[in-house]
Amino acid sequence: MITAKARAVDGPDKPFRPAEIKRRDLDSHDVLIEIKYAGICHSDIHTAHGEWGPVNYPLVPGHEIAGVVTAIGPNVTKYKVGDRVGVGCMVDSCGECENCRKGEEQYCLNGKIDTYAAVDKYGEPTQGGYSTHIVVTEDFVLRIPDNIELDVAAPLLCAGITTYSPLNHWNAGPGKKIAVIGLGGLGHMAVQIAHAMGAEVTVLSQTLNKKEDGLKLGADNYFATSDLETFEKLAGTFDLIINTVSAKINLDAYLGLLTLDGTLVNVGAPAEPLSLSVMNLIGHRRSFAGSMIGGIRETQEMLDFCAEHNIVPKIEVISADQIDEAYERVLASDVKYRFVIDISTM
Amino acid sequence: MITAKARAVDGPDKPFRPAEIKRRDLDSHDVLIEIKYAGICHSDIHTAHGEWGPVNYPLVPGHEIAGVVTAIGPNVTKYKVGDRVGVGCMVDSCGECENCRKGEEQYCLNGKIDTYAAVDKYGEPTQGGYSTHIVVTEDFVLRIPDNIELDVAAPLLCAGITTYSPLNHWNAGPGKKIAVIGLGGLGHMAVQIAHAMGAEVTVLSQTLNKKEDGLKLGADNYFATSDLETFEKLAGTFDLIINTVSAKINLDAYLGLLTLDGTLVNVGAPAEPLSLSVMNLIGHRRSFAGSMIGGIRETQEMLDFCAEHNIVPKIEVISADQIDEAYERVLASDVKYRFVIDISTM
Repeated sequence: MITAKARAVDGPDKPFRPAEIKRRDLDSHDVLIEIKYAGICHSDIHTAHGEWGPVNYPLVPGHEIAGVVTAIGPNVTKYKVGDRVGVGCMVDSCGECENCRKGEEQYCLNGKIDTYAAVDKYGEPTQGGYSTHIVVTEDFVLRIPDNIELDVAAPLLCAGITTYSPLNHWNAGPGKKIAVIGLGGLGHMAVQIAHAMGAEVTVLSQTLNKKEDGLKLGADNYFATSDLETFEKLAGTFDLIINTVSAKINLDAYLGLLTLDGTLVNVGAPAEPLSLSVMNLIGHRRSFAGSMIGGIRETQEMLDFCAEHNIVPKIEVISADQIDEAYERVLASDVKYRFVIDISTM
Repeated sequence: MITAKARAVDGPDKPFRPAEIKRRDLDSHDVLIEIKYAGICHSDIHTAHGEWGPVNYPLVPGHEIAGVVTAIGPNVTKYKVGDRVGVGCMVDSCGECENCRKGEEQYCLNGKIDTYAAVDKYGEPTQGGYSTHIVVTEDFVLRIPDNIELDVAAPLLCAGITTYSPLNHWNAGPGKKIAVIGLGGLGHMAVQIAHAMGAEVTVLSQTLNKKEDGLKLGADNYFATSDLETFEKLAGTFDLIINTVSAKINLDAYLGLLTLDGTLVNVGAPAEPLSLSVMNLIGHRRSFAGSMIGGIRETQEMLDFCAEHNIVPKIEVISADQIDEAYERVLASDVKYRFVIDISTM
């Protein structure tokens, strides 16, 4: 067994504390990664606080992981010691179901294995990236392109793929008008990626506070949703709307912004059900859809795409002692646009 | 002006009465149709009862119209006297917007002109097919193939295209598993069309009462939705679900029946909003969509498809005096599967 230093929480209302966790000895296809940076995703907070169902504490969150390979199992062929690599929201899947065979492991019919708060195929709880080391089977390890620094690479593994995948799936590109609801960790990635794909990008944010940032990131337009005229002005405009906001929104108002055959895709799930008027879909053959991260092949494609187009998240690097504070600031929307933990401070 | 005999209602709670209505003199591209049969669609009832907003009475419903051309305007090129023709839910559109230019006139951005309860481009109220004659611009007239009798042709103009269009748009065909919710006027068309397209078809009906009919119409499977096991048994099964039921359904239960990338399409709109858990979409990249009739080109394609595959609705022909009774029976789901008015009894 390998001992790693980590930061763990012991309950929904507990602060993070230093911890030691065990990582398994390398199985034949396993890769040992020395983690350099781990991003803080809103999902970490939901899970740590027990808001997404019961959690086995102590819990080490973190599924935006960037580091370096320091050892490999005997049959590993994809990576060697010294490689710069990443791990995202999942560390394994059945590999045999229809969806896994299509390369859509995130929709594994037998249940993907999440990077933390899950149970791996050895029966052990998975623990995430707020930690010095992690052991992952090579098929779920990503290669980080040379021109992406490890600190900014980390958030690509969740925020990057979560927005790239629906933009890719629903064919964002030249001639397409894309709206992004919310300019946060996910939204600021969606804007950059959609822009690089060649689409016309509009940010729909509550206020115009971050307008300058949004335009610099590549948005062509920026509207405040607190201004009701926005919804009249933009009625029937967008081919695709990526909703990065997990809070409950007025779905009918946003559906009204879609053009014929347009799709509104939620990448976050509000806890409560959403309601909508079906006439809003029927009248223009619109769709309301959902999308969850992306498959491994597509995640590598996203990393390579970001490298090619010089797309990285805007981050604020923090030390391991600042995690609790960072959580509070995320909840207060006081972050531009992602916190990343410097694991060397662990 | 041309005088036509018709059946009209004078208010939400009023019975039908014999009436005389005026049809405009033929404009250069107009076709005069002697109506032989008119189907009774649930929309007729909603509109006649004022349930879909205020109506200018007297109202002559009917948008499933089959008849014969008896006169043409001077510049008509598509039809000649004696042609067997049909008219569906719309009689005109702007012809200039993006959607009209794509042949999706049903989604005309300037507002399609409905066959009844609308105002035409001459400023006159439109009146529907419960009438001996109608005048329609040739672009909104359909050709009824020789091997389809006019009585069974009528319901194809709404029930046929309303189900054909989403099946066509979402690529029903060999290798696809399609479910149809409800075996009524729309559902019994959806089953036949999806089967002819080569898909595996499952009917989801409240009870098994019409199972024998469903299987004869081409369904491969038939399940009762009153049996909760149905939802466990069929979880994650369907590529496409066509919901023909306008009443409020438990959307989450039905979304759970979709496979990865599956779509549930409503072709009817319940009056109240529907609610759903977004996680049900995100977990399998599912979509909830809506579809409304079809364009003129696609409606002709549907008629030709039905002719080629010998698809016709099951109908009960009634006389003009039986419309009120037929409405009551439709509301009581006591029709297999469409009432068609014999206009010669008018």
